[in-house]
This record gives sequence, structure tokens and C-alpha cells, in this order.
Amino acid sequence: MNDIRSTQTAEDILNREDKDGAVYLTLNRPDKFNTLSEAMLAVLQRELDSIAADPAVRCVVIGGEGRGFCAGHDLREMRANPDHSYYQELFRNCSRVMKSVVALPVPVIAKVQGMAVAAGCQLAASCDLVIAAKSASFGVSGINVGLFCSTPAVALSRSVSPKRAFDMLVTGEFIDADTAFEWGLVSSVVPDSDLDAAVADKVKTILSKSPAAVRFGKSMFHPQRQMALADAYDFAGNVMAENMMSPDASEGIDAFLAKRKPVWEQPGH
Amino acid sequence: MNDIRSTQTAEDILNREDKDGAVYLTLNRPDKFNTLSEAMLAVLQRELDSIAADPAVRCVVIGGEGRGFCAGHDLREMRANPDHSYYQELFRNCSRVMKSVVALPVPVIAKVQGMAVAAGCQLAASCDLVIAAKSASFGVSGINVGLFCSTPAVALSRSVSPKRAFDMLVTGEFIDADTAFEWGLVSSVVPDSDLDAAVADKVKTILSKSPAAVRFGKSMFHPQRQMALADAYDFAGNVMAENMMSPDASEGIDAFLAKRKPVWEQPGH
Amino acid sequence: MNDIRSTQTAEDILNREDKDGAVYLTLNRPDKFNTLSEAMLAVLQRELDSIAADPAVRCVVIGGEGRGFCAGHDLREMRANPDHSYYQELFRNCSRVMKSVVALPVPVIAKVQGMAVAAGCQLAASCDLVIAAKSASFGVSGINVGLFCSTPAVALSRSVSPKRAFDMLVTGEFIDADTAFEWGLVSSVVPDSDLDAAVADKVKTILSKSPAAVRFGKSMFHPQRQMALADAYDFAGNVMAENMMSPDASEGIDAFLAKRKPVWEQPGH
Repeated sequence: MNDIRSTQTAEDILNREDKDGAVYLTLNRPDKFNTLSEAMLAVLQRELDSIAADPAVRCVVIGGEGRGFCAGHDLREMRANPDHSYYQELFRNCSRVMKSVVALPVPVIAKVQGMAVAAGCQLAASCDLVIAAKSASFGVSGINVGLFCSTPAVALSRSVSPKRAFDMLVTGEFIDADTAFEWGLVSSVVPDSDLDAAVADKVKTILSKSPAAVRFGKSMFHPQRQMALADAYDFAGNVMAENMMSPDASEGIDAFLAKRKPVWEQPGH
Repeated sequence: MNDIRSTQTAEDILNREDKDGAVYLTLNRPDKFNTLSEAMLAVLQRELDSIAADPAVRCVVIGGEGRGFCAGHDLREMRANPDHSYYQELFRNCSRVMKSVVALPVPVIAKVQGMAVAAGCQLAASCDLVIAAKSASFGVSGINVGLFCSTPAVALSRSVSPKRAFDMLVTGEFIDADTAFEWGLVSSVVPDSDLDAAVADKVKTILSKSPAAVRFGKSMFHPQRQMALADAYDFAGNVMAENMMSPDASEGIDAFLAKRKPVWEQPGH
Repeated sequence: MNDIRSTQTAEDILNREDKDGAVYLTLNRPDKFNTLSEAMLAVLQRELDSIAADPAVRCVVIGGEGRGFCAGHDLREMRANPDHSYYQELFRNCSRVMKSVVALPVPVIAKVQGMAVAAGCQLAASCDLVIAAKSASFGVSGINVGLFCSTPAVALSRSVSPKRAFDMLVTGEFIDADTAFEWGLVSSVVPDSDLDAAVADKVKTILSKSPAAVRFGKSMFHPQRQMALADAYDFAGNVMAENMMSPDASEGIDAFLAKRKPVWEQPGH
């Protein structure tokens, strides 16, 4: 008798739904806690690349099917390939997915229910916004299997204070959604039953803005963070001057001054 | 009949009061919510340059007249100049003001009542300390007029966690003073009626310190933040050795050991 | 009549206890509030160098004997040497101790009771984890003796938000343990009577992990924080691939998949 899930195709393990300019990517291996297997990383990368090249996309939501968001790497698959260059490539591919989330030209929202573990916590931390259900939890617990969460640490330590990040990394202990919110890892916490609605609200808010302006902002935000202050200002000032030359800025300011609603240019239309 | 305000001179739009070594700069276009027009940026820059060259100044307070702190750029003026190089220069000038606040050799306190919006929020975030009235609010809402607050993001993302900064930037939503305090954007929140007194107290505290030591500290604090750890220690160690050679350090330590009050050297006296 | 304490030897001013792979270093000049005199810095450096070279050490705790953690530099000694190159060397040596804590190949826990002042606050902030008694307090109050805490600012401003760090530095005011916890400077706050037990628990937790994995993590965590995102991922990915090739990762993952307890390799055995 076949295991249905083992015949699941690459398409099946990641659901993509497009709606009004928003793309919903849902990790869909709930029986495996949506682990970032080689296959999962490959389809995620493919979709992120496709989104990056699509001017009609305006917002992305990354979620996970089932009881948890994402359990991190597929440990069984890793142990089946005890090879240094295999691991180097695996972490390179995984890091490429995370960097692609950061580099995507539109905002990415992590929608987190249940556990976000190790590279799953990293995936959430790599998103621009994180909306968590009250019962969600976050941990980088690789240390418990003898594997310090080094690449997750890159994203985590850029989101929360170093003492807190190191504590999570070295103890493997989880923090709940409220703590993650207090620490700045999570943008909003909502009752579990409101998670879908809260994500829909945030998407609606983003879709109500000028698509061009949102893209200018996303393209500027992360790169400037790694620059010295003077370089960051040069860079951001040039982006903002370009933004001012866009039809949406003229329309937006004129509408504001005339106390009417602006009408934005719609990409790909 | 003349509009009195349209004949307001450059001197009038920025009040400067000097008192006991503290300089109080007050944006004074309350009917325009103290927008950072070309004229306002120019007089701000002039005063900051003057302060930077004046060894008698020991502390600066930047506030705004009227119901709000500062509404950011003058949108009407921007729309009247639909020119790429105009915008580049405008943002360059505005960034220069912000960098001058950071580079000033003495501490700068933002005194915030009402709204601090867009470049107004950036001006507050660029100060070393922010004292806010309870009813103050902070937002980077350019996104609502099709103009992502890119240069404000530079200051904001260096003061609060990236998730929180990006959320404010992409939604345009405001946070209240208590939230700004929790997030580390604001140093103190006080009841509205205590704002003047709280600022006066902080100024008094700073004026009670060694003028030389405060200058050593301000000159070191921001540059070292952008350095790698070893470079930061080399830099800070050299500044501290210079500080130790100053008469005030000798006097301060001797006074401490003798359990008496120190008497600091007064600059420009 | 001899002052007993002036005949205290270098060995006496810093206690070292080794227990099950954990090293407890205790500053032991309680009558001097454990100041970081030249002698104290020298013995601390010597012990840190010794620990760095010892593969059997798995965790370090730095504490202070008596009513306070550490009062910072020895002001009397500093005033007795009014020489620029003396101060340069003093701060260079002190910074070397702080960088050695950060660079140590194993986690370092600060155990803080009472006051952590100036370079004492810096020493706590330089540790990976800080466990504080409820009555502990933290301050960088050099400004009160005419000496801005420049080198302490390097560690402090890498642990808490810049507005908060600058406020502490320019006012010299202390924050209590709960505030330090809220701000991310402290990892845990416990009732005074539970401090020993809380530190013992944290040590036990760290000792229960794979020694190799903890070392991979510590070696990666701080360096990657100063890198641009892509470089950080390259670096962390390589460390993690090495970690995966270690026997402990194989054992840990196999144990996890088999639902049994892992048995780690013990260094130096």
C-alpha cells in the first residue's frame, strides 16, 4: 500500500494562492511539520524567484499547514547524507531562501500558528512582518540535537537583543508569542481564532497603499540597515527622490492636499 | 491685507533661546505644523552649524511650537517643484540636518508634544534623547501619500527593532508615547503638563556634569556604534585616555575620593 | 601594622573554582567593590587566556564577592598615574579583557548581585548571558567624576537601544534589574536568595548540551553580528556544516529520531 504523502509532488508540498496581488505560500507537509527538506527549499526558492520577477505581486504571506508553522530542517534527510559538501550546499540553499525573502521587492508576512523551530523560526524572523497566534511559540533548539542553530542565529540576532538571542540558542528553550512580541521578533499577536483575519487585515492595509511606494520602501529598508549612517542617508535619499518622481507620489500628495482619496497606478494592468 | 505669516522671516520660523549653556531651538510655524520646508531646513542647519562651532554651548533642546512637534516635509512646496534634482537636493539637505544633530558635539534632546510625523519623527529619532508628552504620537506615514518614508527609516530603524520599524513604515500607523517608550524610541514619557519641567530637569542634569566629559562622550558614542568591536574599543579607549587627561577628570575623581562636590571648568569663561 | 588586604596576592583577588567543566571566576576584593585595578585586569586576562586554551572548559561564570558585582576602574590607582600613555594602556588592557570574554570559545555568564558600575557594567554587558538578583543595579556613572564611560558604552550600546544607553551614559543614573531585563541587558532576574540556584541551573543546562555544538555556536554568534547579511550567512553556513560533521550532531539527531537521550563526546576525557 502506498504512503500517499510519499508520492506528494513538489507542487503539492507548497501551496500557492494568488489573490488581488497578494501571494499566499503555504508549506504543506503537515505530517512532517512542514520541514524545510531539500524539496521544500527548492520549491520555495522557485516561487520566491517567480514572485521577485512579477510586477503584479504586491505582498506575500508565508504560512504553514497544520498544527505548526515549520519545524526547521528535515533531520532524517540530513542524516541520510553524511557529507560535508552536501551540508554546505544545503545551508547555502537554505540561506538563499532566507536572503530571497529579505530581498523580495514586496513585503513578506509570516503567519505563525504553533511552533516555529530552528530554520522555521529563522524563516519567520526573515520576514518583514510576523503575525502570530497567541499559542505560537518560537525556538532555535538545534542545540538539543548537537547542532547549534548557526544560520537561524543570523536572522534571530538581527531581530532581538543579543542576550536574548544567545539565551534561546544555547538553551534551546522556546518563547511564547507574547514574549516574542515584547522582544520585537513578532509584529502582532492575536487570539488563535483571529489569525486569518489579522493576516487578511494586514494584507488589505498593504494593498491599499501605492504599489510603487511599497516597492521603493522594501528595496531600501534592509540594505540601508547594513550601511554607515552617511551612506544610508545617501542611498535612502536617492530612493526617495525616485519615489517622488513616480506618478503615485504626485497623485498621493495632490489627493492629500485636496482632501480626497488617492487612486494608485496598478502594476501589470 | 497681508498674511502675517507669509511675511514671517527666516529668523521667525525658528526661535532660538540661549540660557545657561543650553540652546532651545523651537520650530515656529505652528499654522503649518512646523513642517521642514526648505527655509526651515536652512535655518535649522545654520543654527546647528553655529552651535557646533560654539564651545560655550553644552546642550540643545529641539521642540515645536503649537499643537504638534513637526509634520515632516512641506508637501505643497515639494509638489511645486516636480524635479528630480530638486528632490535629491531637498533630501540631501534634510539628511544633512539629521546628520548634524547626530554629529553635534553636545547632547540634543527632542521635546515632543503632539504628532511627530515622517521627517518630524526622524528628527526626534535623530536626537540623543527624546522626552515625550503622554499625548505625543509618532508615525512615518508618507506611505499614505505614495511616498515611503525612506530617509526617516534610516533614523527609525537605528532606534527600534526592524519588525516594528517596518510595520510603522508600511502601514503608516502611529504609535503613542507609551509604546514609543517601550520600544526604545523615547527616553521618557511624562504627563503633558509636566513636559516643560521634565525637559528642564534633564537639561539641568546635563548642565551639572563636566562640559568636557559630556563632549568627549557625545563625540564617541555614535561613531563607535558603526564600528566592528575591536575598532570601537580602540577608538573609545583613545577618547577615554584623552578624557582622563582633562582637568575635569582629575577634579572629578579627586572630589569623589574626598567626598566633596566637584567644580568643573566652564567653557568660554 | 600591615594592612592585610594590601598583602593580598594576585591569586587572592580573583578566585577560580573548576567544577564539572564549568569555571567560576569570582572577583575578590569586596572591600574595594571588586574594582578592575591593573592587578585585577591582569589576573582576569590570565585566567581568560588559560580558559581559551583549555578544551575541557565548557562554561564560565563571572561573579563578584561581597555586596556588589564590580565598581569599575580603580579611581585611586588611575589618579596616581596621571599619564596619557598609562591611560591608553590601561584602557587597552581593560578592552582586551572585555574582547576576550566575547571571544572565549564557551559561553560566559555574568552573575550580578548589587551594583555593576562603569567598567563593571561593561563586564556584565560583555558576557553572553547575565543573571541578576532582583536588587542588582546597573549604571555607567563615570560622567559624575568627569569621565564619560566611553569604553563601557561600546558594550552597553551593543546590548540596549541607543536612546537608553545614551541616557544612562550622560546622566549617570542607575537602572534596576527589572528595567535591565525589560531593556534586554539582562537575561534573567531572580529573587536575591535564588541567585546561586539560578546560575547553577543555567550552568547545568549548558553542561547538558553537546560541548562541541556549544563551541561551534559561541565561535559563530558574535563575529556574524558585525557582518553584512550575505557574509554572515556564508560564515554561519560553513560553521553549521562543520558542526553537522561532528560526532555529536550524528548522535544527537539519531537519538532524537530514536526517541532516546543522546550521549555527547566529552572533551579532554
